[in-house]
Amino acid sequence: MRLSGGMAPHLNTSAATRAPPKSSTAEKLLAAAGELMIARNSPDVSLSEIAQQSGVNAALVKYHFGNKDGLLLALLARDAATEMTHLDYLMAQPITPTAKLKLHIAGIVKAYHRSPYMNRLIHYLLHESSGEAADEVSKFFIRPLLEFHRRLLAEGVAAGEFREIDPVLFYTSLIGACDHLFSGRNAMARAVGIGPVTDEVCRAYIAHIEALTLAGMLKPSASSKARAKN
Amino acid sequence: MRLSGGMAPHLNTSAATRAPPKSSTAEKLLAAAGELMIARNSPDVSLSEIAQQSGVNAALVKYHFGNKDGLLLALLARDAATEMTHLDYLMAQPITPTAKLKLHIAGIVKAYHRSPYMNRLIHYLLHESSGEAADEVSKFFIRPLLEFHRRLLAEGVAAGEFREIDPVLFYTSLIGACDHLFSGRNAMARAVGIGPVTDEVCRAYIAHIEALTLAGMLKPSASSKARAKN
Repeated sequence: MRLSGGMAPHLNTSAATRAPPKSSTAEKLLAAAGELMIARNSPDVSLSEIAQQSGVNAALVKYHFGNKDGLLLALLARDAATEMTHLDYLMAQPITPTAKLKLHIAGIVKAYHRSPYMNRLIHYLLHESSGEAADEVSKFFIRPLLEFHRRLLAEGVAAGEFREIDPVLFYTSLIGACDHLFSGRNAMARAVGIGPVTDEVCRAYIAHIEALTLAGMLKPSASSKARAKN
Repeated sequence: MRLSGGMAPHLNTSAATRAPPKSSTAEKLLAAAGELMIARNSPDVSLSEIAQQSGVNAALVKYHFGNKDGLLLALLARDAATEMTHLDYLMAQPITPTAKLKLHIAGIVKAYHRSPYMNRLIHYLLHESSGEAADEVSKFFIRPLLEFHRRLLAEGVAAGEFREIDPVLFYTSLIGACDHLFSGRNAMARAVGIGPVTDEVCRAYIAHIEALTLAGMLKPSASSKARAKN
């Protein structure tokens, strides 16, 4: 629980304030919700199941989070806060922008892999819940991540390592590519019989995204020819 | 309507056979469903609205497509068939693999832009409808697209233009990146106040994905240093 950590300004949302980090009951409920979702590999868990799993009276769920969307939002806010703290830490490291980008790519893929419900929770809150919940997710998840990309790209250009890239387009392609390993895998498994996302698949995908993002897919000779033409 | 075209083997599905291309009633219903979704910018249209828009008796919807998922599946199959025919055509062109990849990237983004409901329809059929519908989408959409990537990557490696890349990882990152321009834009608009996906945004994104996929984001000098280290 790092709601009170470095990211507090991003998390001053109704859901976050409804679940202050000091309340151990709220923490228990969030932990129970996360465990149930991991066990079930789905964000489809009911409030009464969460109450039962946590040993907390069901009425307290309503007291702390309002409703189920409020609890899911607080759960995502908790996980997002941890990730965003990592971004602040990463940005402050005395390493090159290229090295930061590599760590960032690995960080995104590992975060999705560590919290397998996070991806589906984001999709659910953004597209299937209330507009209010979607606004909250946008604020505490998308905005700080995009801001990190802006700073990292600017740092890389200033250091002479990156060419100029639009941060919004960059965010869209990188997050889309990382997200799709998790959101698209079931459908691909149906289509071509590949297995689930294991640690090994994650490592291979991190290496793939890193290589593609940094240096593309053209062979060096073809690449310099293509550059020479532009 | 190219259900009977070159892609027929991929489309020998229950939904496709339920909506044979010869039936003008089925065609009318599909056209009406597509128009309604474009007008509403949402796949949430009812069977009775589709019947009314097309001037076709509601009972015939059931006769031709079984239920709403059957109709949505047939609509996606129709659009997918058109796109897959384009892939076959593209693969047969006497141009370099790099040129084919560029046209392919533009083709994906433009297809999503042309049929704004397609993206949400794919997500709906893959994740929120029956497992049977998801299987169909996997077969007529994901499998031929992945097969195209396999052939294009092999051709590019053989021609000395591409380095070796795993087709499943490549598919995941490219489709995820293209998809996210459309599926993630609403959330980004909420977060940072950017506008909708216009023709201009599409053109900029095509150029971005093309440049990133082919040559990455490192500046040429940094890129050769990075390569020298590996």
